[in-house]
Amino acid sequence: MDLKQQALKLHKENRGKIEVESKVSVESAQDLGLVYTPGVAEPCKEIRLHPELAYDYTNKGNTVAIVTDGSAVLGLGNIGPRAGIPVMEGKAVLFKKFAGVDAFPLCLESQDTDTIVETVKQIAPYFGGINLEDIAAPRCFEIEERLKKALDIPAFHDDQHGTAVVVLAGVINALKVVGKRIQDVTVAVSGAGAAGVAVSRLLLNAGVKDIVMCDINGILDKQDEKLDFVRKEMAVVTNKTHKKGTLKDAMAGADIFIGVSAPDIVTEDMVKSMNHDPIVFAMANPVPEILPETALAGGVKVMGTGRSDFPNQINNVLAFPGIFRGALDVRARAINEEMKLAAAYAIADLVPREELNAEYIIPAALDSRVAKEVAVAVSKAARKTGVNRI
Amino acid sequence: MDLKQQALKLHKENRGKIEVESKVSVESAQDLGLVYTPGVAEPCKEIRLHPELAYDYTNKGNTVAIVTDGSAVLGLGNIGPRAGIPVMEGKAVLFKKFAGVDAFPLCLESQDTDTIVETVKQIAPYFGGINLEDIAAPRCFEIEERLKKALDIPAFHDDQHGTAVVVLAGVINALKVVGKRIQDVTVAVSGAGAAGVAVSRLLLNAGVKDIVMCDINGILDKQDEKLDFVRKEMAVVTNKTHKKGTLKDAMAGADIFIGVSAPDIVTEDMVKSMNHDPIVFAMANPVPEILPETALAGGVKVMGTGRSDFPNQINNVLAFPGIFRGALDVRARAINEEMKLAAAYAIADLVPREELNAEYIIPAALDSRVAKEVAVAVSKAARKTGVNRI
Repeated sequence: MDLKQQALKLHKENRGKIEVESKVSVESAQDLGLVYTPGVAEPCKEIRLHPELAYDYTNKGNTVAIVTDGSAVLGLGNIGPRAGIPVMEGKAVLFKKFAGVDAFPLCLESQDTDTIVETVKQIAPYFGGINLEDIAAPRCFEIEERLKKALDIPAFHDDQHGTAVVVLAGVINALKVVGKRIQDVTVAVSGAGAAGVAVSRLLLNAGVKDIVMCDINGILDKQDEKLDFVRKEMAVVTNKTHKKGTLKDAMAGADIFIGVSAPDIVTEDMVKSMNHDPIVFAMANPVPEILPETALAGGVKVMGTGRSDFPNQINNVLAFPGIFRGALDVRARAINEEMKLAAAYAIADLVPREELNAEYIIPAALDSRVAKEVAVAVSKAARKTGVNRI
Repeated sequence: MDLKQQALKLHKENRGKIEVESKVSVESAQDLGLVYTPGVAEPCKEIRLHPELAYDYTNKGNTVAIVTDGSAVLGLGNIGPRAGIPVMEGKAVLFKKFAGVDAFPLCLESQDTDTIVETVKQIAPYFGGINLEDIAAPRCFEIEERLKKALDIPAFHDDQHGTAVVVLAGVINALKVVGKRIQDVTVAVSGAGAAGVAVSRLLLNAGVKDIVMCDINGILDKQDEKLDFVRKEMAVVTNKTHKKGTLKDAMAGADIFIGVSAPDIVTEDMVKSMNHDPIVFAMANPVPEILPETALAGGVKVMGTGRSDFPNQINNVLAFPGIFRGALDVRARAINEEMKLAAAYAIADLVPREELNAEYIIPAALDSRVAKEVAVAVSKAARKTGVNRI
């Protein structure tokens, strides 16, 4: 049976992948009277007086909404909210498996920014956090920004920040392998969607010297009137040397290439034009921007992809479970930049110095230590920055 | 430890009452590749081509949203969405326990009709049904009506129809005890909110000859300009003999009294004014419209309340789990009048003729047969009326 048949069988036999379970038993009239009327009125009354007690008396503090409009699902594109359900259920499975978080899919009918923001604001009271998922750029940026302002719980677009955190973790360790410092390197980023923008922002916040971002039309140029507001903003804070041209021009002399774009767009020659000891993360899925074989032939020192069948899989399952676990553990009001940086360093630190090498810069996707360590680091950063409630 | 302390302890120790569980295991890279990328793309693509396949490849077909705005929670009133969470989680526990339904709370920030309708339309794609809960009258009527028109899954306001179904089940069996036929009886209903309206409508559909409805201002009168649209509508279809006055006038000569209103408003004398062999369901909670002792002293033949410490508890846990189970089993587009009537007769039929008596007209709340039998009857009625998908 091939992958397709196996995947369909697994989904059909189980009728999906998640269920809602009871944490309490109802075997007697007495149980019923505690779980439901009349006893249930007591926690209701307490929460009414002190809304924060919802964290004590309900599962709110462990519950995350996985919100999508189905507009940018995997590499499948705009397949809509119903077709996106299997991905959201899969995400919920991983949230539970790696971090004990109760995540629940909300697949929204509309792809309109205002409607999505308003809907999430409406459903927020039961949740401890909002994981935005597979929402197309550029509206994903505005939706997240507006929700961060409106809500007293974290709103976190995983396609942006989950990816950015794992990329930064990989970059931290890859730099150790090649013996360069983060403040000395320049990075070429291919792709200016959700992931490309978030990766670039986080790398800059982590101390990277300069970034040259490319979209399908080449290097982002702040003079370009056709750029949307986010690309314009990125064009302003990147490309300090005012490079112009295509991805080829962006890569010339760069220390690091980050691809979150399209298959097979980077050649061996482009890799050869990079600075000495280049690092390449080619994460287009399933076919990367350049295959490891070609990149290594071109002199690449550290190679990562999004795939599990090559070394150094840059997979955001390393980030989102632990980040939300850490945020929920302190009932955080937000997931801020410091928490993301802390998560990246925690992931990087899980590869011991003595084992670190060009083919092992990042923990395996199934490494159960990761979410725990990330959670500890994220909780600590939340407390340090004062976004914690406890 | 008293009930209050026990209830708070149970809720706090468990941090609420529900969790999201995985139905599949993720122990290997291969598992991960089926549950999440790349395998998960396969069911996504199938659903994209055939949206109905969401029922096969995801948990949609077993998932119900419990939607509230927290405006009419238990007898506590308008306590808001956060304070309402324990009730919604409790409901989810009962859905799972009695019918294996995965129900999930959505506690909405707004109490505005348009906003609630729009929000539920937005989140509908992942759900097989919508259970509206504890939303105040009269907007609960409009919200349900508009959602029924807009959605291709059932929208069911349990405070209306769950209550109505169980009351009808009780009435059917109480009439057997006193030897009257449903088409011969008149009913006095106290309370013209969600429950009172739905009970009256279902009793009329079940063949009751006439109903006299009262709200806090007395008998509903179609000439009264101050009535909201629903009470006006009810005033038109009830009270065929044009009674005027108070609840006392409504009860004089009636065969049945149904109270879904306020404590201690019915006296022994009012009961004595009813037709011979009166039936009284006094369901105000926790203190009924008249206590069983007083009612029986006044000559009542069959007495029911909402409480578990008296015989004949009229509890809508007898209805909603089985009704949704039956609807989900046939992937119903709606829960219609025929399905509700079928549910009521199924509940009534669970009390065998030979055991039926004035103190046993309705199955116990924890009777595990009920949801199964109700589900079978509801599925059958759905097929008969063509609202089924399978």
